[in-house]
Amino acid sequence: MNIAIIIFTLGKVIAIESAFMVLPGLVAMYYHEKYWWAYIVVALAGMLAGILVSVKKPKNMQLFAKEGFASVGLAWLFMSLIGALPPFLTREIPNYIDAVFEMTSGFTTTGATILTDVEAVSHATLFWRSFSHWIGGMGIFVFLLAIMPMVGGVNMHLLRAESPGPVVGKLVPKMKDSSQILYIIYIFLTVVQIISLWIMGMTPFEAVCTACATAGTGGFGVYNSSIAGFSTLIKWDVTIFMILYGINFNVYFLILARKFKNIFNIEEVRTYLIVIIASTAIVTLNILKMYQSFGTALTDAAFQVASIITTTGFATADFNTWPALSKTILILLMVTGACAGSTGGGLKFSRVLIVFKAVRQEIHSFIHPRSVKAVGMDDKTLDKNVVKSVCVYFILFSIIYFGSVLIVSTDKYDIISNFTAVLATMNNIGPGLEVVGPTGNFAGFNYLSKIVFIFDMLAGRLELYPILLLFIPQMWKKH
Amino acid sequence: MNIAIIIFTLGKVIAIESAFMVLPGLVAMYYHEKYWWAYIVVALAGMLAGILVSVKKPKNMQLFAKEGFASVGLAWLFMSLIGALPPFLTREIPNYIDAVFEMTSGFTTTGATILTDVEAVSHATLFWRSFSHWIGGMGIFVFLLAIMPMVGGVNMHLLRAESPGPVVGKLVPKMKDSSQILYIIYIFLTVVQIISLWIMGMTPFEAVCTACATAGTGGFGVYNSSIAGFSTLIKWDVTIFMILYGINFNVYFLILARKFKNIFNIEEVRTYLIVIIASTAIVTLNILKMYQSFGTALTDAAFQVASIITTTGFATADFNTWPALSKTILILLMVTGACAGSTGGGLKFSRVLIVFKAVRQEIHSFIHPRSVKAVGMDDKTLDKNVVKSVCVYFILFSIIYFGSVLIVSTDKYDIISNFTAVLATMNNIGPGLEVVGPTGNFAGFNYLSKIVFIFDMLAGRLELYPILLLFIPQMWKKH
Repeated sequence: MNIAIIIFTLGKVIAIESAFMVLPGLVAMYYHEKYWWAYIVVALAGMLAGILVSVKKPKNMQLFAKEGFASVGLAWLFMSLIGALPPFLTREIPNYIDAVFEMTSGFTTTGATILTDVEAVSHATLFWRSFSHWIGGMGIFVFLLAIMPMVGGVNMHLLRAESPGPVVGKLVPKMKDSSQILYIIYIFLTVVQIISLWIMGMTPFEAVCTACATAGTGGFGVYNSSIAGFSTLIKWDVTIFMILYGINFNVYFLILARKFKNIFNIEEVRTYLIVIIASTAIVTLNILKMYQSFGTALTDAAFQVASIITTTGFATADFNTWPALSKTILILLMVTGACAGSTGGGLKFSRVLIVFKAVRQEIHSFIHPRSVKAVGMDDKTLDKNVVKSVCVYFILFSIIYFGSVLIVSTDKYDIISNFTAVLATMNNIGPGLEVVGPTGNFAGFNYLSKIVFIFDMLAGRLELYPILLLFIPQMWKKH
Repeated sequence: MNIAIIIFTLGKVIAIESAFMVLPGLVAMYYHEKYWWAYIVVALAGMLAGILVSVKKPKNMQLFAKEGFASVGLAWLFMSLIGALPPFLTREIPNYIDAVFEMTSGFTTTGATILTDVEAVSHATLFWRSFSHWIGGMGIFVFLLAIMPMVGGVNMHLLRAESPGPVVGKLVPKMKDSSQILYIIYIFLTVVQIISLWIMGMTPFEAVCTACATAGTGGFGVYNSSIAGFSTLIKWDVTIFMILYGINFNVYFLILARKFKNIFNIEEVRTYLIVIIASTAIVTLNILKMYQSFGTALTDAAFQVASIITTTGFATADFNTWPALSKTILILLMVTGACAGSTGGGLKFSRVLIVFKAVRQEIHSFIHPRSVKAVGMDDKTLDKNVVKSVCVYFILFSIIYFGSVLIVSTDKYDIISNFTAVLATMNNIGPGLEVVGPTGNFAGFNYLSKIVFIFDMLAGRLELYPILLLFIPQMWKKH
């Protein structure tokens, strides 16, 4: 294990995060909030520490998959630990574990909160929470590689460890260019949404925070009622942007390259859109009798479906009170999540498609024992190892999921709360059902549960291995 | 597809089942119950039909995997359809779908009931329910092959389709001898339990029914309170026998062969016993404050853990009222189930062990990308295809599970009831939580849900493929 390069990478990440932290400091100054010092002090100290650690390039710049995983896992942990300092120092979140929970929830774009009253928090902290979604959505390493590429060839390992989905590809041959294109699309979409929300009646502050939380499919709101208090127009704006951010970003690249035909050939995107439409239709009909008009039912159904499938976690209705069918559909969407290569979490649609195909292949082999049929997607044959890895990913996910539920069930809540709380954190959604439903929060859990949730949020965002491998002693051996 | 041999096999199975049906007829006569005719009429008609269909050997006796699956799937379906006739004809279960549910639950050793008052039912029907567990536990084809082997070599396909576990092996080179040995062990254990229960104070009728339901890990009781009304001694007797029936029957074969050393080398059995002890210990401590003494808590904890892990479904306590930790442990045990090659259901411990090993191998490959490590169990290397099949099995199980939950959630119950009802039927356990908890039943579900449960019980008992393949049109093509 090349420890030097891990520390070097870590330093760069911390420096970037700390630089970003100047922004909430400026927000505090703008609103004449007394807490501006906390953000500025941590930002300066962080930048100093980060630069000191990474100023000297290590002699051995070789970064293998192992170091890639460790760098990414550790970087995300440190980002949360450092990002949690300002709200902790200002006593807005008086307990450090709570603060770490909140900022891990921010960076991993989960959106689960331990705050019982979001509206009591300063503008600076509200902005920092929402902005952390924006940073975490596309990924800090994608950003790092976009602004300062490291030595050639090794960057792929970092990107692979951070990016969601079973197969991570480059958009263009050069890694740096890929990262830049991704961030340009990301910034463009964010700016368009900020402007549209502003035009529709949000204040600039609300528009920026909401757009950042939508972009990262995070879900932190600036009001206790999340998006429920805004106009129908704004609800549909957020719905549409959530769906856009849940799409594989390759689609936008294809649009830029004017390859419109290829877009409809992407099986994952097609399935994702069909599932959204079908789920919205069923939920609308299922909740219709609870609403005064078809329009309001459709608005709430579409919003909640989009919010859950993209793992954003904004809410305009308390789906805790919805019928069992609608709740079950939402639970299933919590499991699947959005597209690979999007800012959304969950298992990802491409993985779900691959396992369905693997099952079909197995059934085929029972009927025709002597014929061999490969698993294909988008007219390409999938490598056997990818299929196997996806199957194992499902199982590893289940093992960590059930293990977490078991630990959390030693806490004081009912089983629906426990099962959905772990799902909501591990798939970076935010709300679950019952205690952790759209109108609830995670404040009441004990610290053991909260540490489990922190682990699950990081494991879920980084797709298990970068976090899991940190705990394997073999990882840290010299050879 | 060789339809002739499927009909031939089906005829034999129906004849055997119908012959067994004479027994409840005799029970009715013994207790001077007016309904004896229903059992005798169906038994005679079934035997006649079965013999007529199978009296002439088909010209082509070739039975491939495909025909094996179809025979087993159809045979179990017909067994349930015919076994449901007597209680339906006597109007003890006035609706045929309910009757089919009840007898499918019997043969698949599920133990879920639609009866709201078990004690109102005749002795004949109580016996038939419990005895169907006994028939279904070891399997009708194992019985068929034990008494009349079919042409050499092809029997393996039938046995493989019916027997639980990822790898089905023969105990001895000859299939017929293996089947006979299994049934001899099975009958011996059943007789020992009947005698022990009788000595401990049960009536002979109670002892026979309870022993049959324990042997098949079924769970139908003859009282509304299941086993709760019996003495502590009887509770422990049932606990121990449930655990014994959940063990891989290879163990008993090794005992017969005096290969005691080999028993402790079977990883599956070792893990199974450790999990039972650990779960019982945790549950006992968790429920202690609800009980007056440690002894009673331990008795109930051990009973419920053994009942759930072996997927029997007897109850001595309403675990619906237990704390979340205990309920979560029981839910996890509902998922794992018992050992392969036992009469228990669920995913089976050997499958759980194999997926854990597959995950460990995947993690290993991240740390040492260039080293190849095979998955091994019991000092043997597992074939790559077995590992893949087990992973796919988990996923197919999840797909059918969530699909079923989705359909059942259109019914009127809450999500815990729905999620656990499907788990309880698919893993052939019997009780779930809430509405379908130990003191509840399946009577209130609508017919769509009940048909889904019937499908799930059969799919679970036969390990998915024999039932699933019946619905694949390709199966029925000539080539």
